[in-house]
Order: sequence, then structure tokens, then C-alpha cells
Amino acid sequence: MSHVLILGGGGMVGQKLLGRLLAEGLGGTPPTEITLFDLGFPPGCPDGPARITGTLADPGIIAQLAGLRADVIFHLAAVVSGEAEADFDSGWSTNMMAMWQLLEALRAEHDASGGVYVPRVIFTSSIAVFGAPYPDRITDTFYTSPQTSYGAQKAISELMLQDMSRKGFMDGLSLRLPTICVRPGKPNRAASSFFSGIIREPLNGQQAVLPVPDTVRHWHASPRAAAGFLMHAAALDTARLEGHRALNLPGFSCTVAEQIEALRRVAGQDAVDLIRPQADETIMGIVQGWPRDFDPARATSLGFRAESSFDQIIETYIAEDLPSRSG
Amino acid sequence: MSHVLILGGGGMVGQKLLGRLLAEGLGGTPPTEITLFDLGFPPGCPDGPARITGTLADPGIIAQLAGLRADVIFHLAAVVSGEAEADFDSGWSTNMMAMWQLLEALRAEHDASGGVYVPRVIFTSSIAVFGAPYPDRITDTFYTSPQTSYGAQKAISELMLQDMSRKGFMDGLSLRLPTICVRPGKPNRAASSFFSGIIREPLNGQQAVLPVPDTVRHWHASPRAAAGFLMHAAALDTARLEGHRALNLPGFSCTVAEQIEALRRVAGQDAVDLIRPQADETIMGIVQGWPRDFDPARATSLGFRAESSFDQIIETYIAEDLPSRSG
Repeated sequence: MSHVLILGGGGMVGQKLLGRLLAEGLGGTPPTEITLFDLGFPPGCPDGPARITGTLADPGIIAQLAGLRADVIFHLAAVVSGEAEADFDSGWSTNMMAMWQLLEALRAEHDASGGVYVPRVIFTSSIAVFGAPYPDRITDTFYTSPQTSYGAQKAISELMLQDMSRKGFMDGLSLRLPTICVRPGKPNRAASSFFSGIIREPLNGQQAVLPVPDTVRHWHASPRAAAGFLMHAAALDTARLEGHRALNLPGFSCTVAEQIEALRRVAGQDAVDLIRPQADETIMGIVQGWPRDFDPARATSLGFRAESSFDQIIETYIAEDLPSRSG
Repeated sequence: MSHVLILGGGGMVGQKLLGRLLAEGLGGTPPTEITLFDLGFPPGCPDGPARITGTLADPGIIAQLAGLRADVIFHLAAVVSGEAEADFDSGWSTNMMAMWQLLEALRAEHDASGGVYVPRVIFTSSIAVFGAPYPDRITDTFYTSPQTSYGAQKAISELMLQDMSRKGFMDGLSLRLPTICVRPGKPNRAASSFFSGIIREPLNGQQAVLPVPDTVRHWHASPRAAAGFLMHAAALDTARLEGHRALNLPGFSCTVAEQIEALRRVAGQDAVDLIRPQADETIMGIVQGWPRDFDPARATSLGFRAESSFDQIIETYIAEDLPSRSG
């Protein structure tokens, strides 16, 4: 018997997660109830789950969401990195202040229940919590010294959730997702959007802009892997975290040139020819400060799994999301 | 021409800093104006500086303080660790929410000035931002995964200040002070209070309670060193921080047994005989999770200096604060 709430349930990862929940249940059992919250929902969103439409900037919404007393809360809702960098107020109010208010509202439900209500809260953080310079591979105890507002907001949210969990008000963990690639659909305002675009657009016969040098190395996992991380986190014995509730997740590290080579292997030279280099100083400034590679020993030992080649990542997109295949 | 504002100016470190400012000025020049803010001021507080009495929980006060447009702001005001652990709401509202409101108010002054006003903000953080287990010596890139509310609030404040500074609204740095020892005056509610008590009380002919085993190792610096850190930070070229604006400061690492040996060397066996072991599980639980030793390479290379023996720390107390000497 469990009620699952997905904040950001209308987004790409939220929909992937929903598909997995509907197909597999949680720990082998279908959730008794699923509620989705988002600004809006895509046309293909399954009909079964309840939907709440709104913004976390609305305190009434936060009280309503907490009042559901969901057993498992996936918190995927955020102002994305590029937008948080461009709009300081929007990023801090949604990614930081609304996070605090949500946790406070959950704590109030915990208190009102006499301490019985202790929801599992799974927060999607980001590798943007780190700031350059880095070691060749970032270890599990490397410091979070972000160089973007988005990264600072994510790091702060992790700290809030860890302390609320230490106090027993909830049972949280923060997943520092690799960059999700290949994202289906349209480009978004995340500075990382092009990492998907240079694969997705050519596979759909369209031109793609590459705004950074092809020597840029980055850390990737597929949407399928992301949904898998979330499912695994929901079922994890959090005592194994020993109070350190933010995890660097596994992924695959490669350069843009290696991404392009994988595209050539999977889809041929015609696809590669659709990539057009066009430098963008703003995106370069953000992305070149991002992590390149990790040694995610803790998460691996806790059973989190991702792809082991970029070819696999492309093949996952083709199998799950390429419109000409899935549409 | 500079206006210096000390938040927490009535406290012990604030008064030490004030004494240094009055004696030495900032960069060799006396501040044109000094304003102290605190809940109250001690009897011996010098008369010259302006005083504002109030609490950071009051939004009106925050606007008033920011409206001073001080050139240098030392932010030493906090709910201490033991109290923040006992009173969740009080700690988070003062140590986190009021920090955000203060930074937002300073940013509003920056904006209102057309971007001309960019105050130097020196925030006293703490080694409580770290959580066990630790390496033998904590390096400058070790992660902040605090296991107390106080530590979480300090780590969050650092992140806010770093991002506000990166954006150019202010020019901040966070100093992770070692435990300040020997604190003059009375015990406070900080869980670390006994580290001073076992030296201070015997030097004043009084009994002191030792609530932890004497094998506990910890990281210390004197009030004089703390004031020196703050003075040094006010004059530092922050470009040298390269965007990483939280610093582990130098200190002296020793066990409680080594503290007691130093007391014996400086003040004799009679002083040591006044220490009475009496285990306190709550304090042990907090303090045993604290850092023991550091390799503060960055701060050292930036010119921050502390004591190099615990004997020096005791002698500093005797010279500056022992009532029978200074009174």
C-alpha cells in the first residue's frame, strides 16, 4: 500500500519514471495511488494517475502536495540551469526557497501525524554542485563548490534534506544525476541541452548546433538509466547511506568527439554531417566548468547502474524515443 | 574612508575584532565609522562605535543594517551549535533564513546603487560543516556533509554567499573557524564549550567538567587568532580565491589529554586537579563527530596564521583575558 507523488511528473524524466512505475510497481507491488504534479502535462501522459497542475512558487500548492501524505515523493521539479543563471530570482525562489517550504510542509505533516508519517523523499540533484578545477575523476568525498546558481541551489537543497532526514522528519536522499542524454523532444534552456541535440537532431534528419569544442568531456546517462536510479532509490535501505545522503551516480564519461564517433557507428556519416559547430561563449563558459568524469564508488556499491558506452546511450534513445520508431 | 559593520559585535569574537580595529585600523587606516549590531553589549564594550540592538529574526532590522551600506561587514551572529540542535526552528530561521534575507537586502542596496555598492562580507562559518568519517587530516577539497543542523546552516550560508559574490552583488568569503579556545567568560550552549572550560575554569581556581574522554582530538585557535583571521580576510585580494570562497583556516590539533598536559606545564598540577570527568552522552555524540585535524594549505598560502602549540593558546588567554591579570 503506497502513494507515490512525482513533482515534475509532466517532465521527461518524470514521464519515464511513471512508465516504469506503471509497468513494474515499486518493489514488485503496484502503487495504490500515483499523483503527478507539474506546470502541465504532455499529450501522451497516461490517464490513470491523478494530476495537480501548478507552481511550487505557490504556498497553497505546497501545503496541498504535502497534505497528500504520499509515502514516496520524487522531487524532479526545477528551474533548469541556463534559466537559473539568467534569472537569479526565479532560480533561487523555485530551486531553493520552495524546496525549504516543501520540506517544512512535510515536517508539519510528520508532526501532525504524531511522528508516524516519514515519507521517502528522492531529490534529483545534479553534478552542477561541483566547481572546477577538478581531479581527473571526482570521488565521493570531493567538495561541492558550485560555480552556477543552479549548482548552489541543488547543493543547498541536499543539505536541507539531509538535516531533515537526520532529524527523522523524513527519509531523504539526493541523486546527483549525470547529464541526461539523449533527451527526447525539443531543446530546453539547460546549458547542457546540446549534448542531446547533437545526437537527437541528426537521428531525426535535422541539423544540430554544437556550441563547444569537441574536446569537451562530460558525464552522461540515459533517461532510462535516470528512471532506474529513481526506482532503485525508492527501494534502497537508507541506513546504508550512514547519514551521507547525497550520491554521485554512475554514468559514462566521454568527449563530444567520442559522442560523435558513436553516432557515426550507430547512424552513419550522413547523421554526423548534420552537426554544425557554432561557438557560444555563454554555454562554453558554463559547460567547461562542469565535471568530466567520476569514480562513483558509493553509488555503485549501493547497486545503482548506468550504461557502459555511449553507443548504448544512443541505442536507448532509438529504442525508446525516436519518433519514427516509437510514434 | 570605510564603514565597518560587525554583526554579532557584542559577542566575544566581535569584541576582540573591535579592539583590533580600534588599535590597528583596516589596512593601516582607521575606519571612518564602526557600527556594532547584537542582541546586547557587554559592560566593557568601547563607547565610540554606534550600536544597534536587535535580532536578525526581525526583517526591519535586516533592512536597516543593509541600508547602512557598510563597506566591510563581518557576520559573526549565530544561534550556537548546541542550541541549533535543540531548537530546530530557531537555528534554521536565524542561521539560514536570516542569512538569505541579509544577502538579499545587500543585493537590493547593490542594485539601488547602480551596481557601485559591493560590500566585502566576511562570514564566520565553522568546521561543523564537515561530517564523520574523516581522513586523518581534512584537505581543502573535502566534502561538506554536516551531521548537525548548525553545520548544515553554515554550509548553506557559504553557498549563498559564494553565489551572490560570483554574481558581483557583493565580495564575500566564509571562514571556517577552528573551535575558539580559550573563550573568556562563562560557558555557553555551544557543544564545544568545555574545550575552553577545562582550561579557563582551573586558571580561575574553579572546577571544570570534562564531558568527553580525554582521547578526543580537536582543532583549536585562540580568540586572538580568530580576530586576526577576520582582519586578514577584510584586506585579502579575493581574486586569489578563484571563486572558491570558503576557507578551512589554520589551527592547532591536539587531544584533550594534550590540552591538559599543556595546562599542567603552564599552570601546574593544582590547576589540572580541578578538572572533573563526567560523561555527557549528548555532547559526546556531537563532538565525537567533529573534525580532528586539517591540512589548511589554501588558507596558509593566503597568509592566514594561527598558534603552533596549545601552550601558546593558554598563554594568549592568560595575557588577554584572565580576569586576575586583565581586570
